[in-house]
Amino acid sequence: MRILFVILTIVATGPALADEGMWTFDNFPAEAVKKAYGVDITPIWLDRVRLSTIRLTNCTASFVSPAGLILTNHHCIESCLGELSSKDNSLLDRGFLAADRRAERRCATQLADVLVGMEDVTAAVAKAGAELDDKAANDQRKKTLTALEQACEQASVKAKSGKLKCQAVTLYEGGQYFIYKYKRYEDVRLVFAPEADIAAFGGDPDNFQFPRWSLDFSVLRAYENGKPAKTPHYLKINFAGPQVDELVFVSGHPGSTSRQKTPAQLEFERDVVLPSALLRTSEMRGGYIQYGRANQSNAQLIEAPLNSLENGIKVRRKLLDALHDDALMARKRDEASALRASAKLPGADPWQQIESASARERTLYLPYTFIEGAAGFNSILFRYARLIVRGADERLKPNTARLREYTEAALPRIEQQLYASVPIYADVEAMTLSFSLQRMREWLGSDYPLVNSLMDNESPDALAARLVAETKLDDRAVRKQLWQGGKAAVDASHDSMLELARALDGESRSIRRQFEDEVEAPIAAASEKIAAAHFTAFGTHVYPDATFTLRLNYGKIRGWVENGRLVDSLTHLDRAFERATGSPPFKIPDSWLAAKNRLDMRTPFCIATNSDIVGGNSGSPLIDSRGRIVGLIFDGNIHSISGDYWFDAARNRAIAVHPAIIREALDKVYGAKSLLAEIEAQ
Amino acid sequence: MRILFVILTIVATGPALADEGMWTFDNFPAEAVKKAYGVDITPIWLDRVRLSTIRLTNCTASFVSPAGLILTNHHCIESCLGELSSKDNSLLDRGFLAADRRAERRCATQLADVLVGMEDVTAAVAKAGAELDDKAANDQRKKTLTALEQACEQASVKAKSGKLKCQAVTLYEGGQYFIYKYKRYEDVRLVFAPEADIAAFGGDPDNFQFPRWSLDFSVLRAYENGKPAKTPHYLKINFAGPQVDELVFVSGHPGSTSRQKTPAQLEFERDVVLPSALLRTSEMRGGYIQYGRANQSNAQLIEAPLNSLENGIKVRRKLLDALHDDALMARKRDEASALRASAKLPGADPWQQIESASARERTLYLPYTFIEGAAGFNSILFRYARLIVRGADERLKPNTARLREYTEAALPRIEQQLYASVPIYADVEAMTLSFSLQRMREWLGSDYPLVNSLMDNESPDALAARLVAETKLDDRAVRKQLWQGGKAAVDASHDSMLELARALDGESRSIRRQFEDEVEAPIAAASEKIAAAHFTAFGTHVYPDATFTLRLNYGKIRGWVENGRLVDSLTHLDRAFERATGSPPFKIPDSWLAAKNRLDMRTPFCIATNSDIVGGNSGSPLIDSRGRIVGLIFDGNIHSISGDYWFDAARNRAIAVHPAIIREALDKVYGAKSLLAEIEAQ
Repeated sequence: MRILFVILTIVATGPALADEGMWTFDNFPAEAVKKAYGVDITPIWLDRVRLSTIRLTNCTASFVSPAGLILTNHHCIESCLGELSSKDNSLLDRGFLAADRRAERRCATQLADVLVGMEDVTAAVAKAGAELDDKAANDQRKKTLTALEQACEQASVKAKSGKLKCQAVTLYEGGQYFIYKYKRYEDVRLVFAPEADIAAFGGDPDNFQFPRWSLDFSVLRAYENGKPAKTPHYLKINFAGPQVDELVFVSGHPGSTSRQKTPAQLEFERDVVLPSALLRTSEMRGGYIQYGRANQSNAQLIEAPLNSLENGIKVRRKLLDALHDDALMARKRDEASALRASAKLPGADPWQQIESASARERTLYLPYTFIEGAAGFNSILFRYARLIVRGADERLKPNTARLREYTEAALPRIEQQLYASVPIYADVEAMTLSFSLQRMREWLGSDYPLVNSLMDNESPDALAARLVAETKLDDRAVRKQLWQGGKAAVDASHDSMLELARALDGESRSIRRQFEDEVEAPIAAASEKIAAAHFTAFGTHVYPDATFTLRLNYGKIRGWVENGRLVDSLTHLDRAFERATGSPPFKIPDSWLAAKNRLDMRTPFCIATNSDIVGGNSGSPLIDSRGRIVGLIFDGNIHSISGDYWFDAARNRAIAVHPAIIREALDKVYGAKSLLAEIEAQ
Repeated sequence: MRILFVILTIVATGPALADEGMWTFDNFPAEAVKKAYGVDITPIWLDRVRLSTIRLTNCTASFVSPAGLILTNHHCIESCLGELSSKDNSLLDRGFLAADRRAERRCATQLADVLVGMEDVTAAVAKAGAELDDKAANDQRKKTLTALEQACEQASVKAKSGKLKCQAVTLYEGGQYFIYKYKRYEDVRLVFAPEADIAAFGGDPDNFQFPRWSLDFSVLRAYENGKPAKTPHYLKINFAGPQVDELVFVSGHPGSTSRQKTPAQLEFERDVVLPSALLRTSEMRGGYIQYGRANQSNAQLIEAPLNSLENGIKVRRKLLDALHDDALMARKRDEASALRASAKLPGADPWQQIESASARERTLYLPYTFIEGAAGFNSILFRYARLIVRGADERLKPNTARLREYTEAALPRIEQQLYASVPIYADVEAMTLSFSLQRMREWLGSDYPLVNSLMDNESPDALAARLVAETKLDDRAVRKQLWQGGKAAVDASHDSMLELARALDGESRSIRRQFEDEVEAPIAAASEKIAAAHFTAFGTHVYPDATFTLRLNYGKIRGWVENGRLVDSLTHLDRAFERATGSPPFKIPDSWLAAKNRLDMRTPFCIATNSDIVGGNSGSPLIDSRGRIVGLIFDGNIHSISGDYWFDAARNRAIAVHPAIIREALDKVYGAKSLLAEIEAQ
């Protein structure tokens, strides 16, 4: 399942079937659980689980001790491991264990947010946009959400709760608006990570497969004021793990689903978005692999980005397969027709409105993706440059008039990224930038004015190499000075990457404006109407599509039938040793080979459950009915990928690391006695 | 348009509209041309054009002097240029001009075939397969075609015409069978090639684009008995070129079209074939590009395969776009329904039969493609190994019992390939092989038995490197010895690549057998029924889908309207200099910069025509009504790619090099006086 890719806003789902559903904590179907399983899920249970669950930058995690100890996946902290590595010392390869608390190392760009409150602001948002046309309503909605976020944050500073991060959340595609309030930990440190060879055992070939033997866990710790945070809400680990068919829960942040997108939107995904992304990422994959072949140092540099890319390729490949299933597409069309017939909505037909907007989106897609979406400028240094250039302009505006990603509430995250000390590898930057420039030239065409002006006298390779060689944005002091210097400092700079970002900003903003007015606004207006029809038809027995906000689902430990054969829900350590080839991605690290005689070979390793999860749920605790951790979600099976569009109850399975193998590893392989003691003390 | 990709057998087309159509020479619609254009196309005209047209290994060409001089595209001889190059001397980069005839250099794997006769054998084939079930009929058909080819070749040896190559051709998807008889030139030599920078000016970004400035031509010569061949049938060049709206003809070998595939077959292309090929080739593209970045020598090694790969990506990308056009797919379904309704065929519904066979094809596709199709073994050395291993087994069988590609008629081509002296670059071989092994492991899964047995103890990189390092098949003497030594020599060999080919041959043949019996046979039987219905409905006013056999079409010189703007049908030299950036693919070579002052900047460069062509037509002469060459086909515009599925008369355009720029180049840039004199003497 791994990392989160895109966050989209979507429409409400139909009534949930079986154990399906990504429920918000304020609308969890406790009665249905009681009826089906005889288990009481109380408000106290819900509060404790919610307050123990953490949102990381692109994953989920949970507190596992009152001193801020955090359990999550290894793949969720790959970027932290990269930031703490150098060309000669790869923490991804070697793993990490802090000898004591003083040796815990800060992850420069990691955040940990805990959802402490949810406020329904649907009425206020509806009122602000009433009587306006689609474009104006779209703008007004954004302004209102910015104002509500700001008011919430300002109020929190004065309240006894202490300063909170407030973020607007759109649920049921505009059927509901909330302000979600988070307690934020900005100082998150690395405590333990195993070697990548065992954490990602099986690599890309086994990704989204089961049976499985990946020790995909890591341990972090939240700090406040330079000391381990006090976290009274945390989850105990039941190292015995769950039983087959046992009722389990997953608390986490599913990133995005599209279960209620209209047929026109799904066709756009199928015809345009997925194929073009697959072509670009597959080419980049080949480039990374070949770059990594040159020597061991190169191989280490591209390990993390390649993992992430390959995961994305596998996901998109299966999403495309799902959308090529004409029978399921027909079901989507039938559902839309049935709702349209039952709703008898007055005025323009919202499905037709979305179809028109999607047609317009096709014509805007390439320039939007390559320029505003920066797919033509695949470079960390360029992302810095854009943040600095846009940030200088946006901060001169009133908060509610800014692009949403530059509001006051969003600035701390930007500053964290800009000020962080992370290694930048010029070779890799020039390579990724050149690949993306080449593809932009191919897809937009050599005669597209921006392409022509950028590459009229320089090849993509030469341009990329020059931009990377001449920029100073790899120096965080320079970035900080430019950010703090604001518009005057930016205007005075002749930094190569900054000049690039400045040169295309006008056109990029104009493409975005077109997109927002002609695609986003009519789709938002039409989707709201469809959501209303949905509420009328199904009441509140529905869950909203995923939006990388906190959800709870329930299900049970179980395998499935594949090609007529039962796939068991549990794996054990012995098979990992049998499966090893000595070469990545099937290499057992030396630490495990050395410890082999001490290990219990029948230790459970991974578990399959029918929990309804998607990307963003990585690192989620798998919880039993007593609220104890009985697994650590890190992936789904191959059928789970189509979960973006529908839940296939017969075959969709989530995959978790079993707690027994975590204990066995910490105890017998890594000798992490004090860490284990801290976890087990609880 | 460039090189040919796949050769498929397909169904008859509906009645031709506008100037559409790829007509066989025995069914050219001379009356329709007379009616529309007032021009008489006589049997003498047709014979002269046919006998002047050449089929190369993957392209078309034509004789332009009575001493065997051949005009074709530069991109059609890229492999020859590669074979004649070394790491230090790239003919692709530098171009080539033979100082005199003695300096003309043999292209080791090139053949030149001229179609001298066509024999209708439909009745004999029908008789052989009558009363048999689909599987048996499929086998019997192949045996019959092999026997007919053999009889034809044996008869030719005794006849005064001299030895001929005889090939069976399936037209109208089994509506007609022919034996095509070719005079074959096995000794083809390189006379002239410009530098790739000007031949492929615009490179991949401009490929399938117009306006265009690519000097995509080259000159070869056919030899017989060590002397220039006497070729009394040849075409004169009219260097003035054609007028706008002038009637023109294209004689050539369109490779493959699918205009009458059933909806189920098109869906299979859309869902399975095109996406998986795009993923594999895009990744390989990234690998090549990154490999080429290491140094100039690497860049030269991958230039030709990268060009070919990028062309394939662009083609498939646009084919996928075409099949994602739901309206056009609906039209295909409607056409099928109409034919089905009008035909009232007895027995099983052939469209339903094809749908069932296509469903079966989905389940067989991955193993078939990676193992029997060798997509998992992307290596020239492996291809040698398979030819040798299979050839040894097949040659022990009676001719009609062999796999069709190992019949007596096919052996000379195999021997030419095995015995040719071509450079093999171990680095590149190991790279392409490793990429394909990795992808086979991903797509078939680590637990697929063959994958598991190959890569259980070795990584794809290590396995590929070892196989390439330990094989001796890069030595043509070794290949010749193994081929001539037959089964005994092959069985005695422990060559690494040979052992690989041997290890998987059993499984590979078994997959092929399944495919032939369960997919190919029922589709062939059903397609024949559909073809019969077609003939009943439309008579002979139809042309068969392309099969890389000789066709003639007619059309006229004209531009088209793109986004409301007329694209003119002609370009001139001056814009090429304006468009140059100094870097490939927009680099004008030094020879042209040095000659700049001598050149007429208003020389016409490229021409657009509405001729109905596809891949395989590359190198085709564009001919005026007097039978003179007025252009050299080398590409189509972007809309021409959908020509695989339908002809879009409004926008589908072929692109040719104008003869005036050929003359200007030979005369003023390359000083090829004697070559030009030979052409102009005619």
